[in-house]
Amino acid sequence: MSSNEKIFFTYNDIHNTIQKLSAQIQQSGFEPDLIVAIGTGGFIPARIIKTYLNKPILTVGLKLYDENNKPKDAPEKIQWIDEVEKKLKGKKILLVDEVDDSRVTLEYCLRELMSDEPSEIAVAVLHNKNKEKRGSIPDEIKLYFAGQELPDKWVCYPWDAIDINNHGK
Amino acid sequence: MSSNEKIFFTYNDIHNTIQKLSAQIQQSGFEPDLIVAIGTGGFIPARIIKTYLNKPILTVGLKLYDENNKPKDAPEKIQWIDEVEKKLKGKKILLVDEVDDSRVTLEYCLRELMSDEPSEIAVAVLHNKNKEKRGSIPDEIKLYFAGQELPDKWVCYPWDAIDINNHGK
Repeated sequence: MSSNEKIFFTYNDIHNTIQKLSAQIQQSGFEPDLIVAIGTGGFIPARIIKTYLNKPILTVGLKLYDENNKPKDAPEKIQWIDEVEKKLKGKKILLVDEVDDSRVTLEYCLRELMSDEPSEIAVAVLHNKNKEKRGSIPDEIKLYFAGQELPDKWVCYPWDAIDINNHGK
Repeated sequence: MSSNEKIFFTYNDIHNTIQKLSAQIQQSGFEPDLIVAIGTGGFIPARIIKTYLNKPILTVGLKLYDENNKPKDAPEKIQWIDEVEKKLKGKKILLVDEVDDSRVTLEYCLRELMSDEPSEIAVAVLHNKNKEKRGSIPDEIKLYFAGQELPDKWVCYPWDAIDINNHGK
């Protein structure tokens, strides 16, 4: 599953981690009304979480890097929840992404979603990288779930594989 | 991969089919500006297509069945593209879903998207079921890609597996 430089995950690794993550969420007693997936990394984890928690998924799309792969000053919204965001008011939201890396995206999304006055937001990430974070989880957010803790290495997700049959081999 | 009653696909089956589907799209000369994924079934196929075509993904969410699992008269929008839909005007769109079953969802989405005046829409589905269709592809849509043709059987996708390690075994 890992080399010195990179960590590879198969789809079944991811699915099994999501199964454990979903059990953690259920055991906490937190029952979301809605799942919000951060695109595009959160799409696959969120869809698998839906298998276990069976809640509707809304998505938000963000772009953190420009065409030259340089970080932007602030994330650019590719898609937001728009008219539906009125439906977030008073709701319990599970915000899902694949990896908590710098935490910048998570903080941005959490602050944006908080302005829609949900009753509670919990964060669920497939992986949390153990590293110094540039972003922070706002104090209002009490629940944070990570499926697996990782060292600060390059993570190779299966959905990014050009040749899935040789992914990580 | 199949039993008498059901057809099972692993994640790697899906990924390999998407690789072929993406090659079909590229060979056709159609280069989309945007991918639109129909949620939640289209999320995973669309995210894998992005690996090959590298275009931004927008999502639309639809609900075809009510809480008692009965079909609704018309699909209910869970999420639509809202403010961003103005960006569809004049653009080439690749509309993605996991399966073309009754074709009702596809027709609904195509007609809705056409009202935003994109220059072209192509359809890409992971699987097309060979069966009588209740919906139809509007005449304006010239490009339709299916990764694989299937008989009219129950399809078991890996993302719906409660126990992925025993999926299809």
